[in-house]
Amino acid sequence: MAKKSWKSVSPVLFIKNINIDLEEYLADFKNFKNLHHGIRYAHKYDLLHNGSFHEAIGPVLVIAQCFCLMPVRGIRSHSAKGLNFRWLSFRTAYCLVYMLSTIVDTLLTLNMVRYKKLDVRNIEPLVFHITILFASIGFLRLASKWPKLMRSWQQVEKQLPAFRSWQEREELAKRIKTVTFVLITVSLTEHLLSTISAIHFANYCPATKDPIESYFLNVVSQIFFIFDYSPWLAWLGKIQNVLMTFGWTYMDVFVLIIGIGLSSMLKRVGHHLESYVGQPMPESHWREARRQYMLICDLIEEVDEAVSGITMLSFANNLYFVCIQCLKSINTMPSVAHAIYFYFSLLFLLARTLTVCLYLAEVNDRSRTPLNILKQVPDKAYNLEVERFTLEISSMTVAMTGMQYFDITRKLVLTVAGTIVTYELVLIQFQEDQKLWNCDND
Amino acid sequence: MAKKSWKSVSPVLFIKNINIDLEEYLADFKNFKNLHHGIRYAHKYDLLHNGSFHEAIGPVLVIAQCFCLMPVRGIRSHSAKGLNFRWLSFRTAYCLVYMLSTIVDTLLTLNMVRYKKLDVRNIEPLVFHITILFASIGFLRLASKWPKLMRSWQQVEKQLPAFRSWQEREELAKRIKTVTFVLITVSLTEHLLSTISAIHFANYCPATKDPIESYFLNVVSQIFFIFDYSPWLAWLGKIQNVLMTFGWTYMDVFVLIIGIGLSSMLKRVGHHLESYVGQPMPESHWREARRQYMLICDLIEEVDEAVSGITMLSFANNLYFVCIQCLKSINTMPSVAHAIYFYFSLLFLLARTLTVCLYLAEVNDRSRTPLNILKQVPDKAYNLEVERFTLEISSMTVAMTGMQYFDITRKLVLTVAGTIVTYELVLIQFQEDQKLWNCDND
Amino acid sequence: MAKKSWKSVSPVLFIKNINIDLEEYLADFKNFKNLHHGIRYAHKYDLLHNGSFHEAIGPVLVIAQCFCLMPVRGIRSHSAKGLNFRWLSFRTAYCLVYMLSTIVDTLLTLNMVRYKKLDVRNIEPLVFHITILFASIGFLRLASKWPKLMRSWQQVEKQLPAFRSWQEREELAKRIKTVTFVLITVSLTEHLLSTISAIHFANYCPATKDPIESYFLNVVSQIFFIFDYSPWLAWLGKIQNVLMTFGWTYMDVFVLIIGIGLSSMLKRVGHHLESYVGQPMPESHWREARRQYMLICDLIEEVDEAVSGITMLSFANNLYFVCIQCLKSINTMPSVAHAIYFYFSLLFLLARTLTVCLYLAEVNDRSRTPLNILKQVPDKAYNLEVERFTLEISSMTVAMTGMQYFDITRKLVLTVAGTIVTYELVLIQFQEDQKLWNCDND
Amino acid sequence: MAKKSWKSVSPVLFIKNINIDLEEYLADFKNFKNLHHGIRYAHKYDLLHNGSFHEAIGPVLVIAQCFCLMPVRGIRSHSAKGLNFRWLSFRTAYCLVYMLSTIVDTLLTLNMVRYKKLDVRNIEPLVFHITILFASIGFLRLASKWPKLMRSWQQVEKQLPAFRSWQEREELAKRIKTVTFVLITVSLTEHLLSTISAIHFANYCPATKDPIESYFLNVVSQIFFIFDYSPWLAWLGKIQNVLMTFGWTYMDVFVLIIGIGLSSMLKRVGHHLESYVGQPMPESHWREARRQYMLICDLIEEVDEAVSGITMLSFANNLYFVCIQCLKSINTMPSVAHAIYFYFSLLFLLARTLTVCLYLAEVNDRSRTPLNILKQVPDKAYNLEVERFTLEISSMTVAMTGMQYFDITRKLVLTVAGTIVTYELVLIQFQEDQKLWNCDND
Repeated sequence: MAKKSWKSVSPVLFIKNINIDLEEYLADFKNFKNLHHGIRYAHKYDLLHNGSFHEAIGPVLVIAQCFCLMPVRGIRSHSAKGLNFRWLSFRTAYCLVYMLSTIVDTLLTLNMVRYKKLDVRNIEPLVFHITILFASIGFLRLASKWPKLMRSWQQVEKQLPAFRSWQEREELAKRIKTVTFVLITVSLTEHLLSTISAIHFANYCPATKDPIESYFLNVVSQIFFIFDYSPWLAWLGKIQNVLMTFGWTYMDVFVLIIGIGLSSMLKRVGHHLESYVGQPMPESHWREARRQYMLICDLIEEVDEAVSGITMLSFANNLYFVCIQCLKSINTMPSVAHAIYFYFSLLFLLARTLTVCLYLAEVNDRSRTPLNILKQVPDKAYNLEVERFTLEISSMTVAMTGMQYFDITRKLVLTVAGTIVTYELVLIQFQEDQKLWNCDND
Repeated sequence: MAKKSWKSVSPVLFIKNINIDLEEYLADFKNFKNLHHGIRYAHKYDLLHNGSFHEAIGPVLVIAQCFCLMPVRGIRSHSAKGLNFRWLSFRTAYCLVYMLSTIVDTLLTLNMVRYKKLDVRNIEPLVFHITILFASIGFLRLASKWPKLMRSWQQVEKQLPAFRSWQEREELAKRIKTVTFVLITVSLTEHLLSTISAIHFANYCPATKDPIESYFLNVVSQIFFIFDYSPWLAWLGKIQNVLMTFGWTYMDVFVLIIGIGLSSMLKRVGHHLESYVGQPMPESHWREARRQYMLICDLIEEVDEAVSGITMLSFANNLYFVCIQCLKSINTMPSVAHAIYFYFSLLFLLARTLTVCLYLAEVNDRSRTPLNILKQVPDKAYNLEVERFTLEISSMTVAMTGMQYFDITRKLVLTVAGTIVTYELVLIQFQEDQKLWNCDND
Repeated sequence: MAKKSWKSVSPVLFIKNINIDLEEYLADFKNFKNLHHGIRYAHKYDLLHNGSFHEAIGPVLVIAQCFCLMPVRGIRSHSAKGLNFRWLSFRTAYCLVYMLSTIVDTLLTLNMVRYKKLDVRNIEPLVFHITILFASIGFLRLASKWPKLMRSWQQVEKQLPAFRSWQEREELAKRIKTVTFVLITVSLTEHLLSTISAIHFANYCPATKDPIESYFLNVVSQIFFIFDYSPWLAWLGKIQNVLMTFGWTYMDVFVLIIGIGLSSMLKRVGHHLESYVGQPMPESHWREARRQYMLICDLIEEVDEAVSGITMLSFANNLYFVCIQCLKSINTMPSVAHAIYFYFSLLFLLARTLTVCLYLAEVNDRSRTPLNILKQVPDKAYNLEVERFTLEISSMTVAMTGMQYFDITRKLVLTVAGTIVTYELVLIQFQEDQKLWNCDND
Repeated sequence: MAKKSWKSVSPVLFIKNINIDLEEYLADFKNFKNLHHGIRYAHKYDLLHNGSFHEAIGPVLVIAQCFCLMPVRGIRSHSAKGLNFRWLSFRTAYCLVYMLSTIVDTLLTLNMVRYKKLDVRNIEPLVFHITILFASIGFLRLASKWPKLMRSWQQVEKQLPAFRSWQEREELAKRIKTVTFVLITVSLTEHLLSTISAIHFANYCPATKDPIESYFLNVVSQIFFIFDYSPWLAWLGKIQNVLMTFGWTYMDVFVLIIGIGLSSMLKRVGHHLESYVGQPMPESHWREARRQYMLICDLIEEVDEAVSGITMLSFANNLYFVCIQCLKSINTMPSVAHAIYFYFSLLFLLARTLTVCLYLAEVNDRSRTPLNILKQVPDKAYNLEVERFTLEISSMTVAMTGMQYFDITRKLVLTVAGTIVTYELVLIQFQEDQKLWNCDND
């Protein structure tokens, strides 16, 4: 439908469409502020909480849209039915403009990198740009699938065992809010420190007299590699840089939240089963549990198919940057400001990577829980349904994947750590000390 | 039979035999042109389509025979029963002559390489020649098994669920045609670019005045390392070179098509099962499905045994050339023509390797589909046959293999990628920049 | 409870509490001496043996408490019910003082290492200190969980098949005593040799005239890097050093004993099943066996959760020190004393690492035993319980883990060995001979 | 019994015992010659063949005893009941003398190596000596277990399905003879070439005038590193060298033959099952098949426990020598004789390693065969026994192991190949060309 209307649309209709969406968008944003306000009146708002993932991820998507990602409409509506995606909307237009400017910035970076010696560290800005570009394409693609995905999700949620208390209903939303808040705050702090460190560095070996100018010359060097210095360009470049840094972190945040959402459903079924553990339950109890479990497994597969591109990107990107940062750690730091920023940044990266791994691996961990409960079924109550449930869980691997090339399990963490250490040892060989902080080569 | 007649045959009979085959061969080739012509009259021809793999792979084998591979007869006949292999035939003779000339060329290359320093890059032409030689032996061996293999295949196909429409019947043939066309076209383009790049290179540092001569001196250097320059030899060498380059690509194309053929059968059974998903089917339904599934698994094993030598060769060869090309990518290119050819060639190699991996891994992916359907069998319809089917699928690994040394699954792709990156890092250590494009050492 | 009393406690009560515990502690220690004495009167004491793990591990925990680890009370009581943990006790205070002094020592070491070139060998003392610090935190955390854990353990032990003789009842305690005695004796010998080697080294290139002083300057160099030399400080540093070296070995001993304890339970169930092998047993026999097996598996999971932090630490630490020692082995030794100490130390490390791996892997090995017995059930006696038991054992992996990042199985040993060899080969590249034994750089 | 008689024996009895055994030994040897003679009268001898593994491995053990390995008595008797092992026998004494002289030679080598730079290539003779020493200890230990092991084996063989023809009965013995003959012949050729190459080398840079003397000085350099040259010592050293080279190859041959023996039993059961494939067999048929299969699995486990030490040694040894030889392959050869010997030796090593791997992996391959047959059981004949058989095969891994640290499967071959290539790339870095063939450093 979207594609068709794209062709037949008149400019007037276009403007109108955009306009409607803009109003909606602003309403969503206002809504979001209310929500933050609402934290203080928690009890009142909790009555409104329906415990759905759609509701819980809403604020996170509003933030994404502030930074030009995930242009889906109706993210603050009360039900997933309110979601829709249109090519003809303010959010999509906004997002496409951002992608265009990212492409331009990437090409400028490519042009700059071209003149350097090709090695694993010099391509760092290029890797950063290309990752963001692919991520925004990924999010756009995901936005078009999002309404259908959320409806499936809600369908599954409705068939799960009921919440036993409002705390339980609220839990998912609270957990998601906390994780998002922490990660984004730390990411902002990291960016601020990066700015301070860069200004400090600009002073340390100034390219020009003006510290602001020399800072910009350093941070958005790809622009001034071609164009002459202009404050307008500098500020545009800096805004682009901020948006991209956000997108870089958001990728991880989003994947992590999907993981939380999926494992919370498995947890719900697990808790329900645990409350009857050791009791001789009828066959219908196990039939129902098996049905719910299989619904969740199918949903996990569906969601994984939609987001595994972004997951892959997030993993590859984290792996690359952790390696690069570890490699840099061997250099002598020119100042304390650099050192503080550097180690904070390295720790942030490592913590973020580990957090993403572990939250996604939780899906796999929780998918094995029913197996433990099934072992404790008393022999009198052991029946064909229990046997079938055991057999089916044993024969499946339920896990988030990186485009199905690898399953994300706790064991993967060790493999990733091993890979980082191995590559580190090999990369170290090519590094020459002091090179990174010289004034004339970065 | 073939072996006996070889001894007792009189020269007259020999000539006659060869002659008959030659006529057949030309007929096949004409037939092939008709087929291309026939694409325009699709509706008429579709009536003739029986949807068998034998029919679908026919044109691909005709192309192979133009390039002296797979000397099996009856590849354009309507049924696999028409296939046969004879040592006494034009095609086999043609193929043996090619193999002989490849052996000579390989020995000339060995002689040339002998005088260079033994390292991973200098043996590149030797690896190329030896791979092709083994591949043509592999195809000859396969040709002798082909009639029996295709008859087994047809036997299995007849027992699968019927096609539901002519589109479905046509699908396999169309998919194979598309893949073959794309891969061979890109391969030809790559070879043309290689030629242009080589001529450019010949001009860049000419060994002699004549650009054509210096091109030949460069391309078939192994011949003129011993013999004096002669246009006849040069053209012979060039023809041999074209045939070998084709054989090099064809290996991948062939393996890929086998993968498509096998997974299409699993898909057919999967689609059939999916159309009854969630319905309470009688035991006989599952019995039939299990029987069909097991027939396909047995066929996969049989086919894998026949082609896994070629699969192994294709994988090893791609792994080596990807590593070598990545290694070369660090050198500064002497000209834009070189750079374009080089990056096109590298991308082509990577894309080809990935495509082969993924198409072969599809066999493994699709073999797990019934498991998902079996999970959704309603409890009333759950019976011993369903349990047995679940148990048997869980306990088997159905996949194409590289001589049974490794299973080809999606997870293998990551392992291969990891291996390439690791070897790359190690190989880089031994490379000295600029060495590859010097005039006096290639 | 502990936390609450911490706040509301009056100083008088505090002293009283500490006092009571001190008396208990001394009683435990006296008890321990009696026990050693008791070895000679074995027959008399054996009557008192109840074969529980709590009783068997008692002496090992008394030793730990002499070295300020595992401040749990009631370790020599006859039943696990006598165990308790209090923040307000002499043992905990003792342990916290030790941790504090370890922190100070670690900071001094960090300060010293800061001025050296950052490489894999120079951080050795830092790795040593940080490992010990984490280990003592780990043991404190474990101490607070210990009473509950031991009660679960005893609960499971009571439900296992009865011992068939007093030898069998005594076996676990004897095995634990032997292993502890051997490992701690060898560790002490290693430390003595280290001291002799260090004194010899101090003579070899004396920093000062006095050999004792130069020994201390060398051994506790982190202290005298800041402070002037003082015999009091030197002896304090040496005591700290002895305590830490003990803690370093104790980590491995403890993990190993947990492994012995868990596998002894699996062995007991296995022996019981083996005594009826091949006989047609009723369903109730298998039901009982399955129940016992599952109880043990649940206990293994519970214990693993509590100790896997220490396990991880022990593995990582051993891996690091084995690598470092292997790396050093390439240097030429300055004297025979050094050489003897060095190779003894290397062998000790390798043997200790291997022993820990193999004893922990035994848990996994023994968990598969019932599978062999189930295979031999006569077909007449084959019933649903046997099938369920087989299915459940096949679908589980029972093993100690390193924080669930890796399972400890016999196959892991090869992976660890492979990793050591690989890292060794890479590390060797950065080592320069002779550097380690020069007088001015260690 | 053996141990007791050792103490109470009078010298006369000792001599007598030795004497009896010597006569037996010579008889065995004569018997062996007859057997070779007997090949020509195959039909007559085949009547005597009982198809047992004990009978088939007899000649191989006679050869081993000529080279002082496996001092077990009664290896040519008609039944395994005739086997026994005594410490007081000529064969054991012979073997112990050999071990003693190996220890002396090893110490001499250790002394020589001690003065060289410690690197991966210089320890080659030491690795060779230590491997042989451990191998002869391993064979002595195995000899003491052999009679019991062969009786278990015979017990299992008696319960397997009967042979269908005398060819089938003879097959195992013939296969073992062929493999042994080929491997030992090639190994002898390799040793001869090594001798010629060494003599050539001795001429190439003579240490003394006499070519024989300089050859011995080179080959048994560890002896003349301490002692002055003496022809007696030289010949003794050479004999020791021949015995050791044989032992080195024999290790592989032996392990390989064990693999053949075990997989032939699985093959026999497989063939029996295949002859009824697709037919609706009664439950008793499957019960019998399952019983036989489980007997073989238990035997495999028992045999593996006895020989896995030798297996591990053989694998580690082959891995080391393949790496070393590949490393040497980069050097320029001083002469054609060296080059021929070198490449022949390398190929021999690679072929031997691969052969051992593949024959042992066959045990694992064949253990999966019944699974394919079970899949084809018609649904009418599907019963509890079939289900149980399927479940049990799926839940087991039947394979030879290297001391249970790794399972020997076809997939291992790729891992081993990958390890060789990786280590090769790392080792290459430390090698300096030409160093190996200099006159003054080997």
